[in-house]
Amino acid sequence: MSAIALDFSKIPGGLLTTVVQDAATKQVLMVAYMNAESWAKTEATGETWFWSRSRQELWHKGGTSGNIQTVQKVWVDCDADTLLLEVTPAGPACHTGHTSCFYRPMNKD
Amino acid sequence: MSAIALDFSKIPGGLLTTVVQDAATKQVLMVAYMNAESWAKTEATGETWFWSRSRQELWHKGGTSGNIQTVQKVWVDCDADTLLLEVTPAGPACHTGHTSCFYRPMNKD
Repeated sequence: MSAIALDFSKIPGGLLTTVVQDAATKQVLMVAYMNAESWAKTEATGETWFWSRSRQELWHKGGTSGNIQTVQKVWVDCDADTLLLEVTPAGPACHTGHTSCFYRPMNKD
Repeated sequence: MSAIALDFSKIPGGLLTTVVQDAATKQVLMVAYMNAESWAKTEATGETWFWSRSRQELWHKGGTSGNIQTVQKVWVDCDADTLLLEVTPAGPACHTGHTSCFYRPMNKD
C-alpha cells in the first residue's frame, strides 16, 4: 500500500498524468496516463503500466517491443494528481525509435 | 508561428499537458496544462503561462510570487499533445516552497 492517497479525479476517466524520466541521464522520456489498475500493476511489478487513451486498454510499456521500463523511484506532486517515475529503460521510449518521445524542438517563427 | 501543429483535443477543455524541467539541472519541476491562449502567451513572452483547471483562468507562473520561469527550449512529443519546456526558474516551482512539486517519494509498503 502507498502512504499517499492519489487523486485520480482531475482527468476524466480517472487518470493520473505520469512523467517518465531516465533515472541515470534525467532525460524526460515520455508522458502517459495511469488509471488505478495500471498504477497497481506498476507497483506490483516494478515495471511501467499505463492506460492507453486511444486504445482504451491497459498497456504494459515494452510488453510487445521489449522496451520495458524498470521503476527506480516514484515521486508524487504536491496535489497528488501527477507522478514522476524515474526508470531504467531497456530501449527507446518512443514508438518512432527515438530514446525520448520529445525529440522535436518546437521552432519559434 | 510554430512549425508543428499542436493537438489540443486529447484533454477535455482543449489542454496540452506540459512538463517543466530545469534547463540546467534537468530536475522535473512541475506539470501543468496549457490551452491555446496560454501557449500563445508563452511563445510571445518567453515565460510560462498555463491554464489553471481549479481556478479556470489563465495563469502567469510567477506573476504573483515572482518565481517566473524563463523558457529556454520547447520540445513537442511524437503525437503533438504534450510539451516539454526547459526553463530557468527564478525561484521554487512549488507553492509549498520546494524547488520541485515532486518532492515526496511514494513509498511502497
